Amino acid sequence: MTEPREAETETPEDDFRLNRQEQEAINRAVDDGDGPALDALLEPMHAADIADLIEQLTPARRREFLHLYSGEIDGEILSEIDESIRDEVVEQLPRDVLAEAVREMDSDDVVDLIEDMTPPEQQEILAALDDSDRAAVERSLTYPEYSAGRLMQSEVVTAPEHWTVGETIDFLRAEEWLPDQFYHVILVDPRRHPTAYVTLGKLLASRRDTPLRDITEDSFRPISVLAEEGDVAYAFNKYHLISAPVVDEDDRLVGVITIDDAMSVLDEEHEEDFLRMARVSDESHVSDGPFQTARQRLPWLVANLFTASLSALVISRFESTLTQLVILAALMPIVASTGGIAGTQSLAVAVRALATRELTSANARRVILRELAAGMLNGLGLAAILFLAGSLILGAPMIGAVLGMAMIANQIVAATGGVLVPLGLSRLGLDPALASGTFVTTMTDMMGFFAFLGLASWILI
Amino acid sequence: MTEPREAETETPEDDFRLNRQEQEAINRAVDDGDGPALDALLEPMHAADIADLIEQLTPARRREFLHLYSGEIDGEILSEIDESIRDEVVEQLPRDVLAEAVREMDSDDVVDLIEDMTPPEQQEILAALDDSDRAAVERSLTYPEYSAGRLMQSEVVTAPEHWTVGETIDFLRAEEWLPDQFYHVILVDPRRHPTAYVTLGKLLASRRDTPLRDITEDSFRPISVLAEEGDVAYAFNKYHLISAPVVDEDDRLVGVITIDDAMSVLDEEHEEDFLRMARVSDESHVSDGPFQTARQRLPWLVANLFTASLSALVISRFESTLTQLVILAALMPIVASTGGIAGTQSLAVAVRALATRELTSANARRVILRELAAGMLNGLGLAAILFLAGSLILGAPMIGAVLGMAMIANQIVAATGGVLVPLGLSRLGLDPALASGTFVTTMTDMMGFFAFLGLASWILI
Repeated sequence: MTEPREAETETPEDDFRLNRQEQEAINRAVDDGDGPALDALLEPMHAADIADLIEQLTPARRREFLHLYSGEIDGEILSEIDESIRDEVVEQLPRDVLAEAVREMDSDDVVDLIEDMTPPEQQEILAALDDSDRAAVERSLTYPEYSAGRLMQSEVVTAPEHWTVGETIDFLRAEEWLPDQFYHVILVDPRRHPTAYVTLGKLLASRRDTPLRDITEDSFRPISVLAEEGDVAYAFNKYHLISAPVVDEDDRLVGVITIDDAMSVLDEEHEEDFLRMARVSDESHVSDGPFQTARQRLPWLVANLFTASLSALVISRFESTLTQLVILAALMPIVASTGGIAGTQSLAVAVRALATRELTSANARRVILRELAAGMLNGLGLAAILFLAGSLILGAPMIGAVLGMAMIANQIVAATGGVLVPLGLSRLGLDPALASGTFVTTMTDMMGFFAFLGLASWILI
Repeated sequence: MTEPREAETETPEDDFRLNRQEQEAINRAVDDGDGPALDALLEPMHAADIADLIEQLTPARRREFLHLYSGEIDGEILSEIDESIRDEVVEQLPRDVLAEAVREMDSDDVVDLIEDMTPPEQQEILAALDDSDRAAVERSLTYPEYSAGRLMQSEVVTAPEHWTVGETIDFLRAEEWLPDQFYHVILVDPRRHPTAYVTLGKLLASRRDTPLRDITEDSFRPISVLAEEGDVAYAFNKYHLISAPVVDEDDRLVGVITIDDAMSVLDEEHEEDFLRMARVSDESHVSDGPFQTARQRLPWLVANLFTASLSALVISRFESTLTQLVILAALMPIVASTGGIAGTQSLAVAVRALATRELTSANARRVILRELAAGMLNGLGLAAILFLAGSLILGAPMIGAVLGMAMIANQIVAATGGVLVPLGLSRLGLDPALASGTFVTTMTDMMGFFAFLGLASWILI
């Protein structure tokens, strides 16, 4: 085997994205009010890239852009535009363009577009749809937010269970309307209960007289219309599903979820967890202005003023100790901050493991004990370093010893707190990613200062 | 419209997972060495669930399990087993079972299985494959790790450009071997350059005499075999791809990547970012023991000892100030820790935006200024609270004013540092998620202590 080469970070995908020159040409066309130039520049672009472009324009230029380009905004572009600016775009589109765009969209994209609108705004868009599409969208909206019912599209390709491959192909050829993308033909019984599915690959590769029943897939797995979208994405990823039928409470087929929608949900859930762990609202966008940004972040900062005041209170109990040995003030953040890092590490592992269902009631006890032991081990290691540093650098072995002992205590608190807090929140039905960090670092800060100053006043003073 | 109901958190997917009773029955069968009972219990389970089960067993019971069940381990289960225990499982499988399992796997799964093995181990597994499969796997291994070449499967369904729908269907019916899952027929020219693709849905819905050329898709987008897998996953998610042809340096078709593989990569990349931000190795697993866990986390904790020592150094410059006004020691962590939170917030938003290509050189300047302004705004808000608290609770308005001024300075440092550090790392070609946190919190800690104690010694003493 030859030596592997390096993976390229410049990918062919970059060819489809805007370089700076193109970006400037587009800005110029917008500023000059030159509609035909703009159309020509955007003509080769993918709808997703046009949507990105619209998001990245400054608000003033975006208005001008929409004024020039609105006639070209179709269903595909509209469904790609990020929620943060979608209302703004929808408001500026001429009503006929909007109606036409909405008619082109699959029912799940229409639901996604209008679910956060007010009822009058919803009605205006629904009015543009055919009766059957409108009924499908309205039905989806009766299901809870973040449920499979909101995620599914109602456009489904079905066949009676007793059909053969040939009958199915003839039906598909005769059918005027088919979804843009579909991957299975779903077999339904006379009461419209889905019973199995057949991949299009098997349909194409089998003889015309083959009964559909003989070529169904093991992976068939109907999803309840009330299932939570995060669980749906998890199932798609875990079981390598490509599409799955959605059934109502009577087990009747009401729609289908495809993997691209599941992939978007997976992506969003990850992003949400990532931002929540850092105490940022998952409503944050790069396009937000400074006021919006400041407002989203302030609540957590104010919360931290309060939790930090608890630490200040702990420290203030040791004022006389600090007066006698002021170097303690310089050293005390070491114990607290290293505890904070350890708590965050333990917390991150636990939050991920809860999200991937790897941490369950079956192994929680083992994981807690593992964290306890790991915290003790790292505490011992860090304590050894601190004792040496205290002896050799500060020339004060007893201070090193106190630092070390406080560190052991705080590492144990950090490691076990980092798993107990998210487990507790999750048992209460709360999102473990949301507030765990605040709890855990408050614990490690208070414990860090208390253990260090407490031991110091007992041993050193 | 009726009132939306609540999304269920108990999903039908849970039906496929083990409840505690089943788990105990399995443990009992393993402990009793009862192979037939074990087979009966696992018979209805999905390969992915059996793999999960194997991961969650204790190491001792896992050995016993593999001893009893190894005959049943097939390619599907083997490809689902997590890397962390895969070597252990492979070692314990009888050679004939392993060979049979590997023969069933798609080439991309074989690559994934053997890429981290030693060459002799690789050779042993490669020897079990047919010549053509072995050649495909060996070729994949010549491509860099984390490249499209490693991710792709070489099993591809192609058709000459001039074929009709009927010719293609006849070919598919006659072909003995087809991949388990495929979603497109790729059109190739006589030199095997892919030129377009056709969805199976369109093939099925079109008349037999339709030329393939007339029903090709706009979404066609070949991927370079050297493209980085993260970029591939990004493109799949962004452009809603379902499969994409992979081409070598001469633009010749060498394989295909399907969305389920892209979804796994997306999931892994997110997990990696999430854990790295919390300073945890992405090699961490819930099944790790305490020693492994401690060792993975210790380096970052030791690094924090050093950075915290820098803060200690800053504080120690103000010993005389602290001796004169010891309450400063209690208050100083408030400024530092609130700065740490703000830095992490700004950092998380920037790291996400870099990962999603929303933060680019085109808008970096705007985002930096936005952060600067947001930091100033939140600094002012927090300063107002601190001034009031200082006046009303401590009865020391000047201390409140010093706290507030230090907070403003530190919030600005935090917000701008949080975006500048990851931007800088990313420009150096480094992963912004990896070390940013350490840089930013070191900055906010040092700035927090320095600004507060510096202003205090200047104004209060």
